[in-house]
Amino acid sequence: MKYEIELENVKPMDIESRSFEMITEELGDKKLIPGTELIVKRCIHTSADFEYADNLCFSEGVVQKAMDAIKEGAWIVTDTQMGKAGINKKSLARYGGEVCCFMADEDVAEEARERGVTRAVVSMEKAAKLQKKLIFAIGNAPTALIRLYELIENGELTPELVIGAPVGFVNVVQSKELIMKAPVPYIVARGRKGGSNIAACICNALLYMINNER
Amino acid sequence: MKYEIELENVKPMDIESRSFEMITEELGDKKLIPGTELIVKRCIHTSADFEYADNLCFSEGVVQKAMDAIKEGAWIVTDTQMGKAGINKKSLARYGGEVCCFMADEDVAEEARERGVTRAVVSMEKAAKLQKKLIFAIGNAPTALIRLYELIENGELTPELVIGAPVGFVNVVQSKELIMKAPVPYIVARGRKGGSNIAACICNALLYMINNER
Repeated sequence: MKYEIELENVKPMDIESRSFEMITEELGDKKLIPGTELIVKRCIHTSADFEYADNLCFSEGVVQKAMDAIKEGAWIVTDTQMGKAGINKKSLARYGGEVCCFMADEDVAEEARERGVTRAVVSMEKAAKLQKKLIFAIGNAPTALIRLYELIENGELTPELVIGAPVGFVNVVQSKELIMKAPVPYIVARGRKGGSNIAACICNALLYMINNER
Repeated sequence: MKYEIELENVKPMDIESRSFEMITEELGDKKLIPGTELIVKRCIHTSADFEYADNLCFSEGVVQKAMDAIKEGAWIVTDTQMGKAGINKKSLARYGGEVCCFMADEDVAEEARERGVTRAVVSMEKAAKLQKKLIFAIGNAPTALIRLYELIENGELTPELVIGAPVGFVNVVQSKELIMKAPVPYIVARGRKGGSNIAACICNALLYMINNER
């Protein structure tokens, strides 16, 4: 078929690598923190938003710590079904990990109603009771991030990693600044931007990096 | 608990409306196409990205046409599991609609390998055979959008609506310009930005608007 728009001729298997070439080219001599480049580029790939070259914050040594946790079978907890759907569960399962999201659980909804808190708050409390190494991938609810901060500060939870990428307006910026004050390894998308896609993408970037080691 | 960061005190039930207030305030006297305001604001709510006030393109009368199609039981086809996860399936089911995504189907993967095309291409062809009114919510694969263009131009498919919101680099911009040349109702996020979250969000905005009519 002849198109009215000129298309770039790229084979299916080459689309991703061509995309990463374009991203690297456009980043130019932009300085990224050594060891975080793949995560930053994958977030840009997922969002077509170069702001992630500036807004992603990493605690000291977090990438290696997170990769180790996954290799040791850490589970990933999300605050949306979309986040859960986006994470490469087959790849995670190789190391014994699973992804869970309690947001749609009937007991969570009921308790949230009774206490006048968000379902995200109750979901985090439910997850905190799992007898597993835990990675939290938060791409939606600031209230989840705030509750994680409290649980960590109170000594009720010691996660391997908190990915803080809620998106939006009410307490989004604040919840991210808060979690970066907790004694926890974190990867945070500072500011208003983020999303379940970004939270999932950071998990997948870590999984790719582990697979590339092999 | 006393926080080191000052939080805004908003009740769970009021978070969304407070977010929309903030969005409306920041949009100021920005002109939006009448009837599309809720869709635009919901995309901004989902992404915290005000570019959607400028990049969303609507074909003539598309919002009413899309709402009518949903009310008449249209099914929604996505090109990612994330997009499927993000759509309010309960709300859609009230009108008889379902959401389907063929990307993970074994037969799709096999045919894509054999033909040297993307799974998105084969998924669109599989969806085109459904004996239903169809809405396509494309948030990832430009190749899906290009295949839809071909199927429409060839007279093999007459969708009720194409949501064109692939995100990224290779042929993303082009695929969106292309679909806007097809004789089909469309909602397109022009440029590189978009995503499964945006495609799902547009579907959910339409569902909210229908529910608000009742």
